[in-house]
Amino acid sequence: MLTKAISSLQNPVIKQLLQLKDKSRERKKSGLFLIEGVREITLALKGGYELETILFYPELFNEVQVKALTQQQLTLIEISKDVYEKLAYRGTTEGVMAVAKSKTHSMDALKFNTENPLILVAEAPEKPGNIGALLRTADAANVDAVIIANPKSDLYNPNIIRSSVGCVFTKNIALGSTSEIIRFLKAQNINIYCAALQASVNYNTQDFTKPTAIVVGTEATGLSNEWLENATQNIIIPMQGEIDSMNVSVAAGILIFEAKRQRGFK
Amino acid sequence: MLTKAISSLQNPVIKQLLQLKDKSRERKKSGLFLIEGVREITLALKGGYELETILFYPELFNEVQVKALTQQQLTLIEISKDVYEKLAYRGTTEGVMAVAKSKTHSMDALKFNTENPLILVAEAPEKPGNIGALLRTADAANVDAVIIANPKSDLYNPNIIRSSVGCVFTKNIALGSTSEIIRFLKAQNINIYCAALQASVNYNTQDFTKPTAIVVGTEATGLSNEWLENATQNIIIPMQGEIDSMNVSVAAGILIFEAKRQRGFK
Repeated sequence: MLTKAISSLQNPVIKQLLQLKDKSRERKKSGLFLIEGVREITLALKGGYELETILFYPELFNEVQVKALTQQQLTLIEISKDVYEKLAYRGTTEGVMAVAKSKTHSMDALKFNTENPLILVAEAPEKPGNIGALLRTADAANVDAVIIANPKSDLYNPNIIRSSVGCVFTKNIALGSTSEIIRFLKAQNINIYCAALQASVNYNTQDFTKPTAIVVGTEATGLSNEWLENATQNIIIPMQGEIDSMNVSVAAGILIFEAKRQRGFK
Repeated sequence: MLTKAISSLQNPVIKQLLQLKDKSRERKKSGLFLIEGVREITLALKGGYELETILFYPELFNEVQVKALTQQQLTLIEISKDVYEKLAYRGTTEGVMAVAKSKTHSMDALKFNTENPLILVAEAPEKPGNIGALLRTADAANVDAVIIANPKSDLYNPNIIRSSVGCVFTKNIALGSTSEIIRFLKAQNINIYCAALQASVNYNTQDFTKPTAIVVGTEATGLSNEWLENATQNIIIPMQGEIDSMNVSVAAGILIFEAKRQRGFK
């Protein structure tokens, strides 16, 4: 490991890192992204991500701690308080961040460890925080994959990393167009249950013990017709209140855990 | 209805309204709070709130529309764009807001319309957004009451109103100390199921068809020992992933809808 020090905000390395933090386009172009915090970096390593650089602010996190994080050969950069505060998404908390290499999440590469998968599909979730909450639910339920249809942001948005508490790195995730995902699910004989208000039956009347994809749309517009028309069954969570919408991650949690209950939490 | 017009940010009425918007202390002292948006005002009226004043920015919402909202005798104030933008929490969206009189939410006044209530209790939820999401779930499930133990903010925080989509006004809500709430639930023979990690059984093994309170704590620290020691049963949502926490409103949704399922959504 090679250690260098940077204390200037004008340093070109730091300028590039700021771009990685703020701009999806830069993350895509370079194939790199920024991870902040010990837990998140640890989960990225566990998820098989390759780190390129670790940056640390020695008053909060020292070189010995950095070396305990990973055996990978990489560049260590000691940064000043100014630089750290500028780069950090969460303010001065842990004092360590890493530059990691992106993975692709193509549908072609999607594999399951079981013949009876339970999958969560979310179409075009709008807010990074919602994607993070969906991933946390998927993690807790240990679903076999999360598929994001027509994604509106890349997975390495700092707010997705943060709101997923890092499980964005360990979950089996694929991204694709709605058409591509429907083709995939049908080819694999996976039942498609779409959360919907139209032509739907109560979610708890369905058998989720066979290969199952639970599909949720956005709070504002729900699922596209393409999903609704290709569903094995459209399902509804009965709404009995004054307002007719539910947070998408809450709805996904209710549906996924009904499937888990039916499967005996196996 | 009396209509006047205000266009100065220095007007003492506007200054007081800004305080109501920003300061819990001012809301408590005056017994008044600010509501923004047609849907929210409509739900407040449906929930029996008394309005004192309606403020409207005529380019977005006119006096005829204001009068269609309510028959209550109250003061109408036409405000300028500057004043509207300063007061509005959500930016220039709907052009109407109201000053309403607070209700108390004491445990003493808590009544149910059924002998077999299903209640959601949340202890000390930290973020207004979480309280809003809990209230939306409680609304969808039509629970008989939401009780907030040791609340950290007042219910009329603009972010709670907004994130609850206004159902903060229509739900049956009470606030109290943990001790007071436990006394109340025990006196009424309501079973207490506490979401916990210690000495707990899977949530789906329990019978929620009798009078039931589902109690959730914070994501950071869970429930206090006082709750755990007074539970009929501590329950757990099995966590099978890399991270060991779930969004509190997702957890509450899973538990409450398991109770709804057992009760046949009645």
